[in-house]
Amino acid sequence: MVEAEIPADHPRHDSLVTRHRVEAGVEKGITSRQGLIAQGRGEAFDYLLGERTIPSADAAARAAAAHLLLADHPVVSVNGNAAALVPAELVALADAVGADLEVNLFNRTEERMRAIAEHLRDHGATGVKGLAADARIPNLAHERAKVDADGIADADVVLVPLEDGDRAAALSDLGKVEIVIDLNPMSRSARVADVPVVDNILRAIPNITTHARELADADRPTLERIVGEFDPEATLAAAERAIRDG
Amino acid sequence: MVEAEIPADHPRHDSLVTRHRVEAGVEKGITSRQGLIAQGRGEAFDYLLGERTIPSADAAARAAAAHLLLADHPVVSVNGNAAALVPAELVALADAVGADLEVNLFNRTEERMRAIAEHLRDHGATGVKGLAADARIPNLAHERAKVDADGIADADVVLVPLEDGDRAAALSDLGKVEIVIDLNPMSRSARVADVPVVDNILRAIPNITTHARELADADRPTLERIVGEFDPEATLAAAERAIRDG
Repeated sequence: MVEAEIPADHPRHDSLVTRHRVEAGVEKGITSRQGLIAQGRGEAFDYLLGERTIPSADAAARAAAAHLLLADHPVVSVNGNAAALVPAELVALADAVGADLEVNLFNRTEERMRAIAEHLRDHGATGVKGLAADARIPNLAHERAKVDADGIADADVVLVPLEDGDRAAALSDLGKVEIVIDLNPMSRSARVADVPVVDNILRAIPNITTHARELADADRPTLERIVGEFDPEATLAAAERAIRDG
Repeated sequence: MVEAEIPADHPRHDSLVTRHRVEAGVEKGITSRQGLIAQGRGEAFDYLLGERTIPSADAAARAAAAHLLLADHPVVSVNGNAAALVPAELVALADAVGADLEVNLFNRTEERMRAIAEHLRDHGATGVKGLAADARIPNLAHERAKVDADGIADADVVLVPLEDGDRAAALSDLGKVEIVIDLNPMSRSARVADVPVVDNILRAIPNITTHARELADADRPTLERIVGEFDPEATLAAAERAIRDG
């Protein structure tokens, strides 16, 4: 069965699509071993969450959209799993909010960097950043610290899908507004985020895009109100309750 | 850092050892892609369980040991993740209870079968089964149904570490006593087991061996009492509570 043949109303639709894209990611040299293990961790948390977008995650997606629209220079950071799972969806989000896409890998090799940039371009991206690597995030090991001077180094709002607790903490220390997508509400990435979106990336990215399109004509005070009313701690507590209570 | 250098009292000891062995498993062609994803799912459940053996899992390990000692022909089924994670521990358990080790893979290839059998022999196993594949489990797809006529097909008690819900159900339908090690108490494997051990395989296998050595001189009525008093449903409920309540 190819992905296009999976019926949209199949009860395991997201899970089957995910499996297909992860396999393709491995074939293309995009998905790493650690990426496969991280994928499994995500599956378990999503299973406990009921494989749905809970109300608090939807509110977080709306706050994320407002932050991205308010930003002077929003950047969407892309790692191997994000590129494998939602390449077209990341491009659509970047278009909707005028953000740059920048590739950043936990296990950085030039080969994987190029494969991921090409994969994003195959899905419509123009001007993928991350390959220049002419700036550094302070207080992080060398390879993981590499960013583009005109990308994440210059951004005021950064969306970081999926995990790397150290990097999430280092970006937060730089005073950037950080939006994190992570299915584990107890993770360090989720805890340091200004906006933690506890949801499957397959649902979260299109949902942020939908909110951004709805808010495209909203005035600045409206966006600032949405951002100001968002409570990251209450959001994490609601997500943890949903996971624990089933 | 090589595995021997990880201090036994390191707070993340099990997690670091696991990471090392999974990596080595990939290098040796033992661990599959699906195995890496399954490893991640296990990590998430173990995290929620507090990365410890809960009392109900210890009671299950004791009942598992009693079943294995009472058996006429106990067999320990070994898949890629089990072989990568606890090769020496599986050999020690098989020795302690007089069980056969039989390799059975969800994604069976002759190459992986041989790599896993060799890995077990490197860790002291003699007479690894699974390569003859001269019998079938009814009601299962061809490759996953393959077993040895003088191994699992002939066994009265089978220990199945880690997941494959369909295979666990088919073995249970054959009327064999089935011991399952699975960190997800809601999984089908755990639910069809006579003895579900909801614990990390890294802790569960040595723990079953310890109980088996303690019970080595116990008489039959004592072993039968331990087996008779074990309640799989209460065990699963306790594990689910531990995961949900944190």
